[in-house]
Amino acid sequence: MIERIAILGTGLLGTSVGLALRAGGFSGQIVGWNRSHDQASLALEMGALTSVADDPIEAARQSQVVLLAVPIFATLDFMAQLSNELTPDHLVTDVGSTKRVISESAAEIFNSPTRPAFLPGHPMAGKERGGVALADANLFRGAVWLFTDDPAARRSPAAAELVQSWRQWVVAAGARTLDLDPARHDELVAWVSHLPQFVSTALSSLLEEEVGNAPELKDVGGRALREMTRLGASPYSMWRDIAHTNTEAIERALHALEQQLAHVRENLRTPALRSEFEQANRFRRE
Amino acid sequence: MIERIAILGTGLLGTSVGLALRAGGFSGQIVGWNRSHDQASLALEMGALTSVADDPIEAARQSQVVLLAVPIFATLDFMAQLSNELTPDHLVTDVGSTKRVISESAAEIFNSPTRPAFLPGHPMAGKERGGVALADANLFRGAVWLFTDDPAARRSPAAAELVQSWRQWVVAAGARTLDLDPARHDELVAWVSHLPQFVSTALSSLLEEEVGNAPELKDVGGRALREMTRLGASPYSMWRDIAHTNTEAIERALHALEQQLAHVRENLRTPALRSEFEQANRFRRE
Repeated sequence: MIERIAILGTGLLGTSVGLALRAGGFSGQIVGWNRSHDQASLALEMGALTSVADDPIEAARQSQVVLLAVPIFATLDFMAQLSNELTPDHLVTDVGSTKRVISESAAEIFNSPTRPAFLPGHPMAGKERGGVALADANLFRGAVWLFTDDPAARRSPAAAELVQSWRQWVVAAGARTLDLDPARHDELVAWVSHLPQFVSTALSSLLEEEVGNAPELKDVGGRALREMTRLGASPYSMWRDIAHTNTEAIERALHALEQQLAHVRENLRTPALRSEFEQANRFRRE
Repeated sequence: MIERIAILGTGLLGTSVGLALRAGGFSGQIVGWNRSHDQASLALEMGALTSVADDPIEAARQSQVVLLAVPIFATLDFMAQLSNELTPDHLVTDVGSTKRVISESAAEIFNSPTRPAFLPGHPMAGKERGGVALADANLFRGAVWLFTDDPAARRSPAAAELVQSWRQWVVAAGARTLDLDPARHDELVAWVSHLPQFVSTALSSLLEEEVGNAPELKDVGGRALREMTRLGASPYSMWRDIAHTNTEAIERALHALEQQLAHVRENLRTPALRSEFEQANRFRRE
């Protein structure tokens, strides 16, 4: 049913979606736009796109589905523009890591009888470094693709069909879909995604202070250290928007971990340490 | 030069050393002992040993090099026994994760003209789960094998040759050696090994409380969550001894991370977050 998709933002995520759609059997048009034209050209060369657009709004107008694959604040900016430029027969969706603010904006300026449809989405996949060059057709294989759907997005029959079709393509791209309420989404990802990121950043930053001037000592840590600090390479530019749009939930998660670490520290020589290890073991067992 | 090695403790580490020595070209005898005889028999079947011993002290007596591959307190117990049973022509070495207590014991009851030699060692390799079944000839490939050597261990020409020969076999097993002072060793591994472990345990334990009753939600986290909690599967039995013998350094490292996390939490919406990410990025870049 979907014959033409516009991907606005051909970085790691956007380009990987193009590659995964192709690998999953999508044979329609995929037009891509990126702020840096070179990056979009590279996505075209890699086979993620069928053409590159100069004007993102025009590319969106000429497509049925528009995928916003840019940071959250840029997504909100595009939403403000596109809600006026597109028709009720267009579906706009996104890949943003927080969903409350985006869902609120969608309810306000999309999803009415005269406005285009918006389906907030969030694939739980990525890499610690971004950019088109790292794009991967298998990025979503086995990953969960979250949606914070709103029945109002399916008000028109055309939009309802596009929503259903996009969900099917996400599955064809290798992902499993899961529907959550936007507030529950942001709370959940604060625990299972944002907390691990900020812990890895804090640990990497601390170790840079402690052993950063002795590079030979970093090697001592081995695989455990490499894994625990891999996300330390993640860019501020992306996480700034997440920190700004999910602040309270991330604060709660960080504060809880500070308390958990203090508990471990105060019980290094008591039987309470055994309980901590056993509870951690249970998390990994289930 | 070394023709007969006794490995006391044929778990993950001890059995992997046997396999790695064989893969590295060692063609002498490797006699293994384990508290559970079945585990030693399995190590023999896997090719890590040439024979299984019933009596660890007798096996040590009949070997030139004795590798203690048991938890730290068990290592200290074996040291107390072996220092009386072996001769100045025996070398005892170990794989314990903390070295101050073991080095102090070695200086006290080994390394005199009438006592056997002791070379404290610590391969920076392992897995989150132990046991002979996970042993791997490539476990030490690319890893650092730390020593907290003492010139007194090389007092007799025979012991000096065994020390040099053991260091060469460690390299043949795929590791790079690095020498540290015992106190510096324990301080360094508190940062690059023990801190990552206790953070992963605390994070896993906290997440078990928060999302443990909703297994489908654990999958949402994807690769980042899996990596950051992998060490959550580590057994208390091993880490208890580490926590007991490196308490102060681990307390300092945990306390510093608690402060770093509080700093991140208090600055989720300020430019200080950028500095944290940039400092973390530097740790991963160098």
